[in-house]
Amino acid sequence: MRQSQLFPKTQKTAPAYADDAGTALLVRGGFIHQVMSGVFTLGPLGFLVQQKIAAIIRREMLAIGASEILMPTLNPREIWQRSGRWEKLTGDMYQFTDASKRELGLSMTHEELHLDLLASQNLSYQDLPLAQFHIQTKYRHEPRAKSGLLRTREFTMKDLYSHHLTEADLLEFYDQVKEAYLRIFAELELPVYYTLASGGIFTDGFSHEFQSPHLLGEDQVYRCPEGDYAFNDEVRDRLETKCPTHGAELKLERTVELGNIFNLGQKFSREMAIHYTAEDGSAQPFWSASYGIGLGRALAMLALVHQDQAGLIWPISVAPYRVHLIDLTREPTEKAKVEELYCDWISQGRSVLLDDRPISAGQKFADADLLGLPYRVVVSSRTLAANQLEVKRRSADPTVVAELWPLKRQAELFDKSSN
Amino acid sequence: MRQSQLFPKTQKTAPAYADDAGTALLVRGGFIHQVMSGVFTLGPLGFLVQQKIAAIIRREMLAIGASEILMPTLNPREIWQRSGRWEKLTGDMYQFTDASKRELGLSMTHEELHLDLLASQNLSYQDLPLAQFHIQTKYRHEPRAKSGLLRTREFTMKDLYSHHLTEADLLEFYDQVKEAYLRIFAELELPVYYTLASGGIFTDGFSHEFQSPHLLGEDQVYRCPEGDYAFNDEVRDRLETKCPTHGAELKLERTVELGNIFNLGQKFSREMAIHYTAEDGSAQPFWSASYGIGLGRALAMLALVHQDQAGLIWPISVAPYRVHLIDLTREPTEKAKVEELYCDWISQGRSVLLDDRPISAGQKFADADLLGLPYRVVVSSRTLAANQLEVKRRSADPTVVAELWPLKRQAELFDKSSN
Repeated sequence: MRQSQLFPKTQKTAPAYADDAGTALLVRGGFIHQVMSGVFTLGPLGFLVQQKIAAIIRREMLAIGASEILMPTLNPREIWQRSGRWEKLTGDMYQFTDASKRELGLSMTHEELHLDLLASQNLSYQDLPLAQFHIQTKYRHEPRAKSGLLRTREFTMKDLYSHHLTEADLLEFYDQVKEAYLRIFAELELPVYYTLASGGIFTDGFSHEFQSPHLLGEDQVYRCPEGDYAFNDEVRDRLETKCPTHGAELKLERTVELGNIFNLGQKFSREMAIHYTAEDGSAQPFWSASYGIGLGRALAMLALVHQDQAGLIWPISVAPYRVHLIDLTREPTEKAKVEELYCDWISQGRSVLLDDRPISAGQKFADADLLGLPYRVVVSSRTLAANQLEVKRRSADPTVVAELWPLKRQAELFDKSSN
Repeated sequence: MRQSQLFPKTQKTAPAYADDAGTALLVRGGFIHQVMSGVFTLGPLGFLVQQKIAAIIRREMLAIGASEILMPTLNPREIWQRSGRWEKLTGDMYQFTDASKRELGLSMTHEELHLDLLASQNLSYQDLPLAQFHIQTKYRHEPRAKSGLLRTREFTMKDLYSHHLTEADLLEFYDQVKEAYLRIFAELELPVYYTLASGGIFTDGFSHEFQSPHLLGEDQVYRCPEGDYAFNDEVRDRLETKCPTHGAELKLERTVELGNIFNLGQKFSREMAIHYTAEDGSAQPFWSASYGIGLGRALAMLALVHQDQAGLIWPISVAPYRVHLIDLTREPTEKAKVEELYCDWISQGRSVLLDDRPISAGQKFADADLLGLPYRVVVSSRTLAANQLEVKRRSADPTVVAELWPLKRQAELFDKSSN
């Protein structure tokens, strides 16, 4: 992409609503734009990051045998009535009556709709286990949305639903999802604790959360400094504050919830009276679980974790572009050579942002720091004359002297797996 | 994917709401599932088709220099108030007041939001032209939704917005989009007429539509049988019913609208009082256009056009899987060989659906006809013993004798560009 066509444009300062350092950089870089409190547009760069997060999640979900579907966001009241959650969610869920007097809610989770899909079939024991996910829009009425993308009214979520004949089978899959989630957060380069938490409106038992440590987090987690035992402050009454394995005193940390798993047991199957036909012909309830990851919140967290004073520092796995090609030349013949290099890379499917704007080198470097692409390739009249490129990692110490690479080694900048 | 894990399952008959032959096949094949009238879940196969439609559209939009963003579906009333369309759309748009007394609407088009994005910047003549699109959910209050996916309350749309310094520049881009749309529909194997139509709530002038001929269509188009002149019945009062080029009498046909282009002129820039700073420092209105394609409707139309008595016949460009591998063997050693072939293909990134269900050959063939994948590869004990595969095109006359291919030529089934 040409930076001259990037819109929204970069900004020197962030608006007042960007009340954390991650949101401020995302807004200044044009990754996101606030439409109203808690509701955002993703600009071209923000959209690319979210697409890359989605691709990583999708790959891991397909790898554990889940299939991808797409459930709607307009939910009829009747289906939510069957689980008894319509009334419980008043205040949190956007619920309204349309011009035809139909009562509708906007999706905030999809247990009811996925169970209803199961109910539409003559469900047999041969159809289970079943695991399906979608990457879809969710809504939550937040009276006071805050902290940019961390707590929004409209957000993109991956939610997975699995249904099983036995609790043992459910627990085995639960563990597979846990491992997939840990791989996803590792690839996103987001540190997470696997944390016991309250089941909320989903289950009376414990749930599990993937909590990422950050001072700005709204959650508080007790965690063993020696091991991987951790629980959310909300379940403190039900648990000891000493590590069961190491005996160490747990430490309290602020965290941001990036994902969760709910063991729903037979609750939804029983409450909605949806059963499968067992081998002996009897109608039986099944075991279910649901598993979520918020994509927008992962994006917000990436911006909080991967940054310095000058701007963002995207991990290669989710960077909107891999290479930032910065043209500092002045002569038309030189510019034609940079253009040729750019078109060459694009035609090879390489992931490149070309700064083709008629502005000063200082402004270009400041914006490059702000946008935070992994590799910066600078072409000046001097390096071009020597048939070289100046290459620098954004993540490296800014005082490190840039390497000079011969043009022929340019392919080393890219690798096919992640462009 | 393994067909044993496909859910919803295939059905012998369609429910009553599936009131056209395309919807009936989509529901029977598990491509779609109705949640309420006009609101559908996409099953794994329906989702894959929609993803492929999206990929074709995305590629063509990026090729003409548009960048991809994502605007939200929750729209604040204030922004729509500025164009005067909030009141005009009462009845069509889902509008409601949330628990915080905030008035919200669900997206049905995005002119207002994209103009508002422009207003958030210090827009200069150097920022134009600008073209941005997104693939996003739209909502429309249809008192009586009907015909499956043809007229729904929630649907996926690609909408593109372009803004220009001059009308000439706008018209040039308009034409580029028209050509891109014609390439998209050609690749989708959907016939379309480029049709003059009413501007509706968008403009007082004409708009252009991409109308696909079908008896079930809700639109009526006058069309020259000799050339490409066509207009929608809704503008009949404003035009002659003779072809201006050929003089021939126009013929009336029923059609389905798959896409549209609105030349908005300076209407939105002026009405919302959003200007750019010209080279001389003055504030000037700009020229805008918007361009839509409905993905769900394209999916519905594909099912209407590409089918026979036995089921669907997907074009290779949008088929959910390219090859349907049907295992008719009985012995475990034979099944292991089929499994090996399947895993081999999957590990090469090939697009294959394996019918691994423990049912009769007749049921498998009936479902394969229903699902309509381009290539069917049948493995029986007999062909396996001869180290051969039985290969058949779904689109070929069913009485044609199947070819027998040596296993080694299996790569010919796939080509890298579309798997």
